[in-house]
Amino acid sequence: MLGTNSCHDKPEQNVTSDKAVFVAVDWGTSSFRGWLMTADGNALAETRGPEGMLHCATAGFAPVLADHLARLGGTRLGGIQDLPVLICGMAGARQGWIEAPYLHTPTRLDALHDGAKRVDTQGDVRILPGIAQADAAAPDVMRGEETQLLGVTEPGFTGLVCIPGTHSKWIRIESGSVVSFTTYMTGELFSVITQHSILKHAVDHDAPSPAANEAFRDGLQRAIDAPIGLTASLFSLRAAQLLSFQQQADGAARLSGLLIGTEIADAGSRYGTQHPVRLIGAGALKDLYAAALAAAGFEVAIVDAERASQHGLTRAAIHLWGAQFT
Amino acid sequence: MLGTNSCHDKPEQNVTSDKAVFVAVDWGTSSFRGWLMTADGNALAETRGPEGMLHCATAGFAPVLADHLARLGGTRLGGIQDLPVLICGMAGARQGWIEAPYLHTPTRLDALHDGAKRVDTQGDVRILPGIAQADAAAPDVMRGEETQLLGVTEPGFTGLVCIPGTHSKWIRIESGSVVSFTTYMTGELFSVITQHSILKHAVDHDAPSPAANEAFRDGLQRAIDAPIGLTASLFSLRAAQLLSFQQQADGAARLSGLLIGTEIADAGSRYGTQHPVRLIGAGALKDLYAAALAAAGFEVAIVDAERASQHGLTRAAIHLWGAQFT
Repeated sequence: MLGTNSCHDKPEQNVTSDKAVFVAVDWGTSSFRGWLMTADGNALAETRGPEGMLHCATAGFAPVLADHLARLGGTRLGGIQDLPVLICGMAGARQGWIEAPYLHTPTRLDALHDGAKRVDTQGDVRILPGIAQADAAAPDVMRGEETQLLGVTEPGFTGLVCIPGTHSKWIRIESGSVVSFTTYMTGELFSVITQHSILKHAVDHDAPSPAANEAFRDGLQRAIDAPIGLTASLFSLRAAQLLSFQQQADGAARLSGLLIGTEIADAGSRYGTQHPVRLIGAGALKDLYAAALAAAGFEVAIVDAERASQHGLTRAAIHLWGAQFT
Repeated sequence: MLGTNSCHDKPEQNVTSDKAVFVAVDWGTSSFRGWLMTADGNALAETRGPEGMLHCATAGFAPVLADHLARLGGTRLGGIQDLPVLICGMAGARQGWIEAPYLHTPTRLDALHDGAKRVDTQGDVRILPGIAQADAAAPDVMRGEETQLLGVTEPGFTGLVCIPGTHSKWIRIESGSVVSFTTYMTGELFSVITQHSILKHAVDHDAPSPAANEAFRDGLQRAIDAPIGLTASLFSLRAAQLLSFQQQADGAARLSGLLIGTEIADAGSRYGTQHPVRLIGAGALKDLYAAALAAAGFEVAIVDAERASQHGLTRAAIHLWGAQFT
């Protein structure tokens, strides 16, 4: 997969763009994604697999990395054994490969690389730290997203970033520093509610309806208008179907609107809607959030999630090894 | 189990108090509870089992009722074959024994018996209807709770009733009529979140801590202060433990406080806190709600849940068969 330079925040170094200088890895809870990177943030080759932290905690991290490096090397003339490897994500958690302790808010994004931990293994392999908000009134943590933030913000950036997902994150950045952030269990709640609660009878993933967009917007607006009523709105989704006001085929879209709307209403009340939001996402979820943020009055700029990770890892790599890259 | 007359709302008929005049049944989704009742609302004997609607939808309802009537009869001299049977709950749902169609709000509680459906079976067996709020903007349904409402409200009652549980209900009653109600998925969310989400690592049901009461109050207060932040507060429960601000042993109590507080904050904003609340509950949950309602500024009167069902069924039975009871 060849990357493009469409992203506004591409690293500024000018070097030959087809020379691989390091390996970038986003190593999450349940997935591994690696790229052979140029110094200006382009991915020359990629490898991905399901060997996330949970898998490696028992199977070991080093063999999984070696296997993926071999796959990346196989796509190139010659080996890549000598290239440094930079990792972000849950591989740096306490239960990961080696702990890269959290930086604490407020913390400058362009100092992320200072917290990188070198792994005692073959080659130069380092893991970037996460960020913690060690505030007893609003405790929070991230691992992986901080690297995406570095990837999508220019030096001195002030504004909001939204990263939707299983655990959606909203981040307030001032002059290039993460000053506060909030994690919402939006995606995970959608998953456990549709799989394990009475609402499993109110959704039908196999039959998306032509009215799904409208149902999403209805749920969204209901949540924005009355965000404290979420736990009641959930049950009324079931009741509305029993009473024939709504259709099962629209249930998943409506639930999605309710949960995303509740998140956005709370984030708006915490951080205000006057700042433009950089939305880091992919696929259908990115589109849903873009529509939802616009409906809630936010000005939105969209950035692809993998490009954000690649660019953040590249920026940090340039800090760590830039002298070798030219 | 002999009932007592401590409940303020005992049916007003004066007859010999040890004469069984009908059989009262609360037949829910996953449980059967039956009582041999006097005309003044005392239970002379009881029978209970796990044969709820879900079980009977395949195994049949009539044999289960016959079995429980035999158990009740066996506790008395002579049989009880000739006594009428009055049922409330999910046995009257569309997927139950026979559908007793919902009455629609606003509806008088003392007219519940008019909606009772007689079952085509041996003896005089009738099922009370549920109540539906057929309002597209706030659709809602109840089955079983309407009978408890009849049991805990005197004729002409105006006020609020709260029935905590898997699907907690708040009901606004004016001059003896149910005018509106709201169902919250509070109990079910607690269950699916602690069993199936990342928060399963944040609770420890086996190790209730001495600080659990305080954790419950903290969670409650957080939700009352910032009820739109529920989905963020959930994740922060996990983060607070990772950062050592909170203990796993307190997680369940804190989560319970968050969910109950969110429910009460929304109900207070819908229905106001100026009215006294009748709380229909049992066991530890009743105590948690009593404390939470008081903390939120409500004046509370507590009624036992089974007594509420027994008294509601007795009131309706007197309307249906009172002439035979003397």
